[in-house]
Amino acid sequence: MTTGTLSSSPILTGSLSPEGLEAALRDIGARRYHILHPFHRLLHAGKLNRGQVQAWALNRYYYQSQIPIKDAVMISRLPTADLRREWRRRLIDHDGGSEGTGGLERWLKLTAGVGLDRDYVESTAGILPATRFAVDAYVHWVRDRSVLEAVASSLTELFSPKIIAERVSGMLASYDWITAETLAYFTPRLTQAPDDSAFALAYVKEHAVTFEQQKAVLDSLIFKCDVLWSQLDALHLAYVDPRLPPPGAFVPEDAAGD
Amino acid sequence: MTTGTLSSSPILTGSLSPEGLEAALRDIGARRYHILHPFHRLLHAGKLNRGQVQAWALNRYYYQSQIPIKDAVMISRLPTADLRREWRRRLIDHDGGSEGTGGLERWLKLTAGVGLDRDYVESTAGILPATRFAVDAYVHWVRDRSVLEAVASSLTELFSPKIIAERVSGMLASYDWITAETLAYFTPRLTQAPDDSAFALAYVKEHAVTFEQQKAVLDSLIFKCDVLWSQLDALHLAYVDPRLPPPGAFVPEDAAGD
Repeated sequence: MTTGTLSSSPILTGSLSPEGLEAALRDIGARRYHILHPFHRLLHAGKLNRGQVQAWALNRYYYQSQIPIKDAVMISRLPTADLRREWRRRLIDHDGGSEGTGGLERWLKLTAGVGLDRDYVESTAGILPATRFAVDAYVHWVRDRSVLEAVASSLTELFSPKIIAERVSGMLASYDWITAETLAYFTPRLTQAPDDSAFALAYVKEHAVTFEQQKAVLDSLIFKCDVLWSQLDALHLAYVDPRLPPPGAFVPEDAAGD
Repeated sequence: MTTGTLSSSPILTGSLSPEGLEAALRDIGARRYHILHPFHRLLHAGKLNRGQVQAWALNRYYYQSQIPIKDAVMISRLPTADLRREWRRRLIDHDGGSEGTGGLERWLKLTAGVGLDRDYVESTAGILPATRFAVDAYVHWVRDRSVLEAVASSLTELFSPKIIAERVSGMLASYDWITAETLAYFTPRLTQAPDDSAFALAYVKEHAVTFEQQKAVLDSLIFKCDVLWSQLDALHLAYVDPRLPPPGAFVPEDAAGD
């Protein structure tokens, strides 16, 4: 029922070396990672108003909230204690070591910092349906596809330090109502993401040997880029251009004021 | 992992009568059915160019292709032969009684009639990721939710005769390159959809008795409206305004010519 991403992975004529596979993965990132999306460029260039930044933070919360779910599904599919321990690091990063810590909690500090009510954010009542569909598709991918494809779908983290650096420096420079404390979510991600992606990259380079396996890995990264890209598409349509929020979605208080 | 649609169903203070439930369902349709979407209005008013109509037909093919999958999942969950036979009608409507018949085949006549290659359409290689995520969310809903919620999610058919009538008459009047034969998909749907929705409506009116069941039914219809609406959102962003097709998606040949 999930037919997956058939679209335009690089045409392979035979299996690649591990280095060739890494190069093909990095090429997908260079063409499809959401750092290229106009919404990201507007966000880090300070071209969004407060309501638009709120919409971004609100919708992105749903993504953040499902990451530990996705990671738990992943752990449940890994066959050895070694692999499960490695992946458990991510679960701890997101859910924290104790109450009030961890990435999800830090994201709630970000949504509070941009002026959103915590209960409203946690209810996910105002998110765009397209956000929910895309994020759920990611969790389902990790549940329903091969372990190799599930691991490969995490490889967008190869590209995240750059987008985080752009986002944090750009947002701090551009929005006087955003503080470094509000953006504290991102600081640990600058070291966590490279650890995570180094493991996942080594895993796929070791386990994707045949043409079919390598194609599956490349398609999984394309799929994940689509998951991230379509979330910015939905934000762009609803809140930037042509500003067409679907029925029931969050409407910023200052929507009429700019 | 699917947390569902928590957004803005009518506030219920107690359980409704069957007639009250029907009225609440029809009210959701009046506010959220995709007949209200700007893309539909442009389509039936003849305001789209051929490439934009192609993009609609191409993406909608993926929805059509998953309807019999969704119906087979539904049948697999129904407990009695009576119910399964009733739902089997839909499967036959979509997959046909023999090769070259049925709704899916008629949709391929529509995509051919607007100038798309059959193999390309069937590959689904050019569809928008948001189309895939929304449609897959519908199939997963029918698989993962209660039978009552699964049945309720089909209730958008209550509203489809009106949108089909608008679409067919508007498209025939507005586009001289579209023929009645190309739009033959829709003719049987004008009688099939009311049969289907009459059954589903009677089913939910009988089985949704408690407050919780009725809220679940109303939320299922909101969810399904979101599935349809978000498909038009994605088409609108990619091909109408601001014309931001995601990487890898279909690009009409005449995209630059209008």
